[in-house]
Amino acid sequence: MKDETVYLDNSSSTKMDERVLEAMRPYLFEKYAVASSEFGYSLGIKAKEGLEDARSTIADKIGADAEEIIFTSCGTEASNLALKGVAKKLSEDKDHIITSKIEDFPVLKSAQSLEKEGYEVTFLEVDDEGFVDVDELEKAIDEKTGLVSIQHGNQEIGTVQDIEEISKICDQNDVLFHTDATHTFTKLPIDVSKTPIDLLTLSAHTIHGPKGIGALYVKDGTDLEKLMDGGFQENNRRAGVENIPGAVGFAKAVELVTEEENERLKEMRDALIKKIKDEIPDTTLNGPAKDRTPQNANITFHYVEGESITLHMDMRGFSVSTGSACFSKSLEASHVILGIGGDHERAHGSVRFSFGRYNTMEDVDRTVEAISEVVERLREISPLGKDK
Amino acid sequence: MKDETVYLDNSSSTKMDERVLEAMRPYLFEKYAVASSEFGYSLGIKAKEGLEDARSTIADKIGADAEEIIFTSCGTEASNLALKGVAKKLSEDKDHIITSKIEDFPVLKSAQSLEKEGYEVTFLEVDDEGFVDVDELEKAIDEKTGLVSIQHGNQEIGTVQDIEEISKICDQNDVLFHTDATHTFTKLPIDVSKTPIDLLTLSAHTIHGPKGIGALYVKDGTDLEKLMDGGFQENNRRAGVENIPGAVGFAKAVELVTEEENERLKEMRDALIKKIKDEIPDTTLNGPAKDRTPQNANITFHYVEGESITLHMDMRGFSVSTGSACFSKSLEASHVILGIGGDHERAHGSVRFSFGRYNTMEDVDRTVEAISEVVERLREISPLGKDK
Repeated sequence: MKDETVYLDNSSSTKMDERVLEAMRPYLFEKYAVASSEFGYSLGIKAKEGLEDARSTIADKIGADAEEIIFTSCGTEASNLALKGVAKKLSEDKDHIITSKIEDFPVLKSAQSLEKEGYEVTFLEVDDEGFVDVDELEKAIDEKTGLVSIQHGNQEIGTVQDIEEISKICDQNDVLFHTDATHTFTKLPIDVSKTPIDLLTLSAHTIHGPKGIGALYVKDGTDLEKLMDGGFQENNRRAGVENIPGAVGFAKAVELVTEEENERLKEMRDALIKKIKDEIPDTTLNGPAKDRTPQNANITFHYVEGESITLHMDMRGFSVSTGSACFSKSLEASHVILGIGGDHERAHGSVRFSFGRYNTMEDVDRTVEAISEVVERLREISPLGKDK
Repeated sequence: MKDETVYLDNSSSTKMDERVLEAMRPYLFEKYAVASSEFGYSLGIKAKEGLEDARSTIADKIGADAEEIIFTSCGTEASNLALKGVAKKLSEDKDHIITSKIEDFPVLKSAQSLEKEGYEVTFLEVDDEGFVDVDELEKAIDEKTGLVSIQHGNQEIGTVQDIEEISKICDQNDVLFHTDATHTFTKLPIDVSKTPIDLLTLSAHTIHGPKGIGALYVKDGTDLEKLMDGGFQENNRRAGVENIPGAVGFAKAVELVTEEENERLKEMRDALIKKIKDEIPDTTLNGPAKDRTPQNANITFHYVEGESITLHMDMRGFSVSTGSACFSKSLEASHVILGIGGDHERAHGSVRFSFGRYNTMEDVDRTVEAISEVVERLREISPLGKDK
């Protein structure tokens, strides 16, 4: 692996911060026992202290109480637990669920699973920048609605929904509100003590923390069925020996994020978007210019396949992604780009650049220079060429 | 944490091997991208190679094909996926499930959840050493039986079931067979190419691997519904960004286990059992003397509370557990000891000693010396004293 690789796929996965591993180390090699209560031995009590400190750190970051945080194995599990765990506790006259068409797969597919099981699910349309229309949401809510799940920041095009407004509407209608904050946690302010959010999906590996750990915030008093049966861990809401090193690493990752860093991400994002717009013809920014996650730029280079760009950028030492990360294997068109009214050509030509801690403004310059050449070459040989 | 702590709770959690972290390191700090197919960039392809190599290593260890291994977040998730994933695919005339009364919680509680959902579940009795009677099993199987789940080695008393015989009976009756091998994987031979096992639960943190990773072996062709919806990872059988560092660490942990080590575990186990029997009066070995997991000794010290022993041993620098690890918080009597016909007194006085890589024969001597003194003192002051 050459050091010079410019990695711009931080929305899928990030390089772990060395300081995160240092924080985890005592829980791998010294305090490695299972968390135990006051009836256990001291190694287990010390392990439990680490776990509970981590829980508090994460809770504090979103204005929650520690007991409202359930550690899970990842954001995917958290969203599955939120939707399915709540759904199973909804009464029969409250089995209507509302979500949007551009949610990330954990929410989208969980909602589809519930639909197959007999729940009524409404998949809201979004506008051409990916925004849910709050009036449409309000219209969709009826006396049968039990749960609304609208993401905070979109995984591909970065659209940041107005969750203050959305959560207020849910609250007024006595409907539970879940939001997937995988791509906004620590990057944009979230305060559950002020915003009436009932369930919130959090992830560590998108903020230079470890893989294999995530969390679900569940507001005190929310009825939730376990997804994972077994022991009584996590206040009897998620079984399985606790991944304490993971939880401690997650908390450290949260602590390491600064406002300066988030500002830096925005500056890189905006510089990249501006440079590409200025220097490369026939491009479209996917998602909004404002109200966008700090790390995300998503641009369609018309008349070119995103896969070809990815491949050629890779040969030059740049990691960028196309379509949705989870879906790229299948080469199907991104449901998000289609969801905002794009056609297959726009979807297939889309490239996502997502910034992280280890990127620099120099990376932006080098990336634009490289992609400019790549796109020009590809357009010369492209069967999708604009003269066709 | 003093270095001198003698840790004897390796069945709950083990100290990670430093070599496991070294194997994981490149996937934390260099090849940290999401696994990607040939359409992705090279950092993702290299990450995927690591993931697939890990999968092959684990598959080879049990005589499986790599595609038959699904990585999960832990053994608990693997057992949940096995029972619930299979159950949802069983036809209505095959919705009878058989398990035993002394299974570990992930299987036991999943079976209870399914029972609540309307499945018919038989919980087989075991004998006074914890063995399932294969004739009883055969009698319990009828034309409605779709799945049998009997663990390989017991989590508390170490009883190793005759899964060769049990799986054969299931196979002959055309019933799927799952076994939880959390406490036997790498310690006792398991070969799915010779033994007709359909589903097998594996865990890393019990063999000096990382927490937050486990696996489920699923025989090719077995119908299984996803528990975790989202992306198409793990051959579309388990969604969520892959924990590649975890998978690589798991594989390394598997490679590090040797037959010599397993022999050493048995020697320590047998020495401890013999010494305690010889030196301390009024003790009962829980579980069999033969056909017992290499790492496990479980002994009831009559007229004494296990919690008191744990506490006093801890003050002397020894970590031992009582009851089942997951349950110890509640101080309820172990369902395993009750399951083998023990009373509450026997359950509450039980202590589990489980050995790992970092234990030595000297630890055995010191442990017996310490517990001998602790038990003697406690008996002097015990309200459960034998004169009562």
